[in-house]
Amino acid sequence: MNLVLSIKNVNETEWIDRLQALLPDRKVEGWNGGDCEAQSAEYLLAWKPDPAIFAALPNLKVIFSLGAGVDHLTSLPELPQLPLVRIVDPDLTSRMTEWVVFQTLLHHRQHLTYAAQQEAGVWNSHKQCAAKDVRVGILGLGELGLDSAKALKLLGFQIAGWSRRPKLVEGLESFAGNDQLESFLNQTDILINLLPATPSTHKLIDAKRLAMLSQTGALGGPVYINAGRGATQDEEAIDAALTSGLLKGASIDVFAVEPLSHSSPLWKQRNCIITPHVAADSNAQALSEYVAGQIKRFEQGEALQNLVDLETGY
Amino acid sequence: MNLVLSIKNVNETEWIDRLQALLPDRKVEGWNGGDCEAQSAEYLLAWKPDPAIFAALPNLKVIFSLGAGVDHLTSLPELPQLPLVRIVDPDLTSRMTEWVVFQTLLHHRQHLTYAAQQEAGVWNSHKQCAAKDVRVGILGLGELGLDSAKALKLLGFQIAGWSRRPKLVEGLESFAGNDQLESFLNQTDILINLLPATPSTHKLIDAKRLAMLSQTGALGGPVYINAGRGATQDEEAIDAALTSGLLKGASIDVFAVEPLSHSSPLWKQRNCIITPHVAADSNAQALSEYVAGQIKRFEQGEALQNLVDLETGY
Repeated sequence: MNLVLSIKNVNETEWIDRLQALLPDRKVEGWNGGDCEAQSAEYLLAWKPDPAIFAALPNLKVIFSLGAGVDHLTSLPELPQLPLVRIVDPDLTSRMTEWVVFQTLLHHRQHLTYAAQQEAGVWNSHKQCAAKDVRVGILGLGELGLDSAKALKLLGFQIAGWSRRPKLVEGLESFAGNDQLESFLNQTDILINLLPATPSTHKLIDAKRLAMLSQTGALGGPVYINAGRGATQDEEAIDAALTSGLLKGASIDVFAVEPLSHSSPLWKQRNCIITPHVAADSNAQALSEYVAGQIKRFEQGEALQNLVDLETGY
Repeated sequence: MNLVLSIKNVNETEWIDRLQALLPDRKVEGWNGGDCEAQSAEYLLAWKPDPAIFAALPNLKVIFSLGAGVDHLTSLPELPQLPLVRIVDPDLTSRMTEWVVFQTLLHHRQHLTYAAQQEAGVWNSHKQCAAKDVRVGILGLGELGLDSAKALKLLGFQIAGWSRRPKLVEGLESFAGNDQLESFLNQTDILINLLPATPSTHKLIDAKRLAMLSQTGALGGPVYINAGRGATQDEEAIDAALTSGLLKGASIDVFAVEPLSHSSPLWKQRNCIITPHVAADSNAQALSEYVAGQIKRFEQGEALQNLVDLETGY
């Protein structure tokens, strides 16, 4: 009934303290390269864990992924066939929506043009299209995609969505599967990529798909926004599309390799906003409460929530 | 029953053509310094008009202000005591809300910090507070203020509002009058100024009022946003507050004198966004339809909408 943590790149001690306070009758400890009470460990909270951990914890019952994405686990051949729970947290969803809405408005409201004018001391207004004439297309219609859709719809944008499997969502034109991806992209001015990293989304947004985006929209060229996973995009193709003008702008928070390499030309692309994987920085307390709550549910015989389908990877 | 236009700084001919098409049985013409059918003119559509126009049009019945603000008319001693209608247009309101939401998120999401990092090729994340911990205060609770409040509330911000006269708005803590202005500012992290320019709002936001903003909020210092009227702010005080750190950031679309003088130090203030009065660039067709619609209402004996109170100036 104990909980082991293996969390890379964050302060593991703080997470242990928080979870220990929430689960006072369990032992909560770090993996420490194997220096832990391995036999009694039934739960694992992991972020980019040591792959050796699974074989060393023989009595695991549930694995929790610290974050909405689970590709850091599903990509490991060592991952056992156990219930895998991902984080779905209202706080994380709100933060993601803020970032998506902000970046959408940044391009829509021509911020980079006005920022350059301010730098040069120029007072000059530019024709501004209305939100109702801009077609936003959201790739991925899970919790995150639907919440962004709701906020952007309130601001007046036209919203469509695409998901692997068909979804009916009120007020949203929805497309599904590879067959409908081209039609979806053809009628999209601002593409918002919120897809998980899975084998079937690997480099889904490549040169061919970028070329399918609408070139005739009110913005004068398509915009690409990604707050999902870097593995779903071909960064060379994005750079080339920004250079050729096929893409008018981009805002990217996630990259195939993070931190983004100093040698990436995306850093210097005009009209490309780079943020360092901060779109949905999680609230540690809220996530700890979520994990503790799921453990309690599980032990009371209730179903775990937000289980990952290990076949599809999300 | 004819309509005369006196519109400064915009293409008057295009407005005449659009309105003539909507009012085919009237004569729609420009003022032309008096070279028009003055006796038959019952309606005037004006933007910063020649003050001589009022005495020269003896049979005016209604004056329309081209824009939400009417200070360009109410400041003229020559303005007759006639019904004065201001523009309230859903398109204009949406555009204003877009700009307000965008600038609020820009400061909340630390965009200027991340933009500077991108310029330097730095990948470094910063602690991000949640919207629910940020207190937005809206000065002015007319159509524009309430629409911005709605969108910002959906994004999770705490919203309060201040208006000259008390207003009860669901889901919004509201303050009113000079007596409550200090309490309102004391609990505001992001101040959004959407006030009209009137004698009682002249330089309302001065050094004393800026110093009342909360210094203890989640953002680490207050932010000032103005998309209302430049006359309501003391620009020297804003510049001084940005320099001293009393203000953490600002986004300003309107200035006491426009275009903003090249000598204004605000152009070069770090953390201050300047846009050239573009927050709510109107859709000419929608506004023309609004004016034509009001004329038809008036002639059918219905009440004019969005009449300005000439006492209060809004």
